[in-house]
Amino acid sequence: MSARTLHLNLFVYPGGHHEAAWRYHGTDPDRLLDIGFYQDLARRAEAAAFDAVFFADGPSLADNVRYASRFRLEPFTWLSAVAAATERIGLIATASTTYTEPYNLARLFASLDHLSRGRAGWNIVTTGAPQAAGNFGLDEHPVHAERYDRAREFVEVVTRLWDSWEDEALVADQKSGVFADTDRIHEIGHSGRHLRVRGPLNLPRSPQGRPVYVQAGSSEDGRSFAAAHAEAVFTAHQTLRGGQDFYADLKARAAALGRDPGRLLVLPGISPFIGSTEAEARALHAEFDELTQPEYSLQLLRRLLGLDLTADQLDGPVPRRLIETEGERGNGSRFRLVLDIIDREQPTVRGLMHRLAGARGHRVVAGTPEQVADQIQEWFEQGAADGFNVMPPWLPGGFDLFADQVVPILRARGLFRTAYDATTLRGHYGLPRPAASPALR
Amino acid sequence: MSARTLHLNLFVYPGGHHEAAWRYHGTDPDRLLDIGFYQDLARRAEAAAFDAVFFADGPSLADNVRYASRFRLEPFTWLSAVAAATERIGLIATASTTYTEPYNLARLFASLDHLSRGRAGWNIVTTGAPQAAGNFGLDEHPVHAERYDRAREFVEVVTRLWDSWEDEALVADQKSGVFADTDRIHEIGHSGRHLRVRGPLNLPRSPQGRPVYVQAGSSEDGRSFAAAHAEAVFTAHQTLRGGQDFYADLKARAAALGRDPGRLLVLPGISPFIGSTEAEARALHAEFDELTQPEYSLQLLRRLLGLDLTADQLDGPVPRRLIETEGERGNGSRFRLVLDIIDREQPTVRGLMHRLAGARGHRVVAGTPEQVADQIQEWFEQGAADGFNVMPPWLPGGFDLFADQVVPILRARGLFRTAYDATTLRGHYGLPRPAASPALR
Repeated sequence: MSARTLHLNLFVYPGGHHEAAWRYHGTDPDRLLDIGFYQDLARRAEAAAFDAVFFADGPSLADNVRYASRFRLEPFTWLSAVAAATERIGLIATASTTYTEPYNLARLFASLDHLSRGRAGWNIVTTGAPQAAGNFGLDEHPVHAERYDRAREFVEVVTRLWDSWEDEALVADQKSGVFADTDRIHEIGHSGRHLRVRGPLNLPRSPQGRPVYVQAGSSEDGRSFAAAHAEAVFTAHQTLRGGQDFYADLKARAAALGRDPGRLLVLPGISPFIGSTEAEARALHAEFDELTQPEYSLQLLRRLLGLDLTADQLDGPVPRRLIETEGERGNGSRFRLVLDIIDREQPTVRGLMHRLAGARGHRVVAGTPEQVADQIQEWFEQGAADGFNVMPPWLPGGFDLFADQVVPILRARGLFRTAYDATTLRGHYGLPRPAASPALR
Repeated sequence: MSARTLHLNLFVYPGGHHEAAWRYHGTDPDRLLDIGFYQDLARRAEAAAFDAVFFADGPSLADNVRYASRFRLEPFTWLSAVAAATERIGLIATASTTYTEPYNLARLFASLDHLSRGRAGWNIVTTGAPQAAGNFGLDEHPVHAERYDRAREFVEVVTRLWDSWEDEALVADQKSGVFADTDRIHEIGHSGRHLRVRGPLNLPRSPQGRPVYVQAGSSEDGRSFAAAHAEAVFTAHQTLRGGQDFYADLKARAAALGRDPGRLLVLPGISPFIGSTEAEARALHAEFDELTQPEYSLQLLRRLLGLDLTADQLDGPVPRRLIETEGERGNGSRFRLVLDIIDREQPTVRGLMHRLAGARGHRVVAGTPEQVADQIQEWFEQGAADGFNVMPPWLPGGFDLFADQVVPILRARGLFRTAYDATTLRGHYGLPRPAASPALR
């Protein structure tokens, strides 16, 4: 195996990532709320020695739930039950800095890290969906810059809470009667622009010290935040060149801040349709596209581009100029990515809808196991990725094909581990366990 | 078995309920953060056909953690992992209406109910510990009445969120392409004095519809709240008469509101020291008291009575008049309970400390299995209890003695089930599954 190791997460979405996954004959919609289904998936990913399973999240209901399995599995409860069914695989949860209290969130992650013996990761988001605001007493979703300003303060606060018990604070000496050395437990006394939190946390420091910090926004604010705080970045790119540009930019930003760029992993999404021939893979992909529903896809376009198209325009060209004049750029980096697809490929509206149906802007590939492995190797070796968020079109079958057919090729090429050599997510990602910095107390 | 069935919960505290439990030779302090320890405990309680395990909580660190295992296990993560290791037993979590957001809390409970297939219960608290305020940006803990005012509104909001998907809303019809019937998913549009929440919840209605509503305050506000909302009440009483008065009062209040008093279970705490003779049980209790530390106990007295005593007063009488003049009544019902102990038993300070060391004011009994069973039967048959929160002095041994020696006696007397006849916590408690009331939408 090469010194540099590929990292692979299984990105779990109810039913799978293709918007029509739940309609596919290989999907059982009756199991989408069955914890056993997700525990079994995580066991399969663990058997393949994947780094982590990842559960995305958002504190509101998607308006297109009529046409797709777009409800939300609450990540802390779900991942705790998944932790109980696994031993090694990492457990990454999305959680919002805009719509949670830092004390509550710090507890949830510290507890997940304790009960999983060091496998927790936090995908730090500021929440993209504006409809979340109404569920939390706000008239309007805070603007992008304001959300990131709170996020920076929030990360500082929860980091200090995770460090508020020194590692040696838990004594539990039955003889002397000292359970905790309270000289080693510290209030944090934070008072900032957005938050006031006294601390300390109400449980001992967790196995990893802090969960792995993950970030997933590619906007200017997002990149700047990731360069400062993230240890892994989830990102969406359609082309090798786009992936390389992002990779180089992020690593340079981290280095400019004095960080080791090797401790900031870049992990693009990839959604693979796998067939024994390329034609078979393409036919499988087409079968999924046949199951899409225009009502759902048009809602997605409205969300990504701020553009209201109607069903009778489906087979005409995408009205590029309308987007320029009427589109909103609420979701900065994803907006840019879709515009690039339009410019590069000049699709019809239906073509664009199918282009986005697989993984909402993440890269979809269709090919033989060798072809998929080639793509992964190319990005990994050509400076576009340290690994991937694998986004199966449907579950569990779409994952099984990847694990059974692509992973062995990656192993034969010396790119991916054959077994775990660590027990924590930090260990899998090659990240050190952070000391409870006195400077942060 | 009699028509009326005794209900038994295992109230889990790290190490056990006696404040010195962690120092007892039968306790392994290295396992207090090991999820396997709690999963194993829950499996033992399930093997005994207990109704539920219960995890208390509070969003701050107790100031006496120096002397006892008083950190907090975050209940949602912990109970989700316990759910994964069990099949039938109920899972009750304390959660605060003062220091959480209703949308987040509604999701956590709905998810716990989904993944456990209908076993979630919510112990609704307004949070007693004033130091929590500093962890949530507040200068002061809101006063008692204000906390209950928010609690009432909070319960209404989360109830409506749990009902925001009708039971029939999840369609998942692969052929028609309708995943959710959005005509059966409703915004709640709540705007009140404390909260504004639009909804709907972002996942389908859970197996129980709503978690079981539990309440644990015995103040005037607490009783009034329980009579209106609770389906089970956790309470602390030292004497049969005290238990009977509370039981009668609460059932009458519920009846006066038009509720069926049989659907409001009263479950006092009981902490049993069990020996093969009464003398052996008392010796065991004394062994625990020997392990107590005055520093811890004096802090507890200060919290319960608002009274600062010093170590040199330990063997003198409790200065009753000082309490009257200087004590604070922050924790109303528990303050009254301790005053009653002082008046009834005229203890020394040390005696009072030992009296409270077992279960913080809950009833401690020491006796043979038959004597413990007698006490339980008396309270159950004499109108003081519908069941008990069993609070083992130490874990797991203190629970094993109860399960192995007391439970068989209760069964032989026809008081307690020999096996589950239901699969949900509502089923164990004899409570109906609530319909998603149109009136609440």
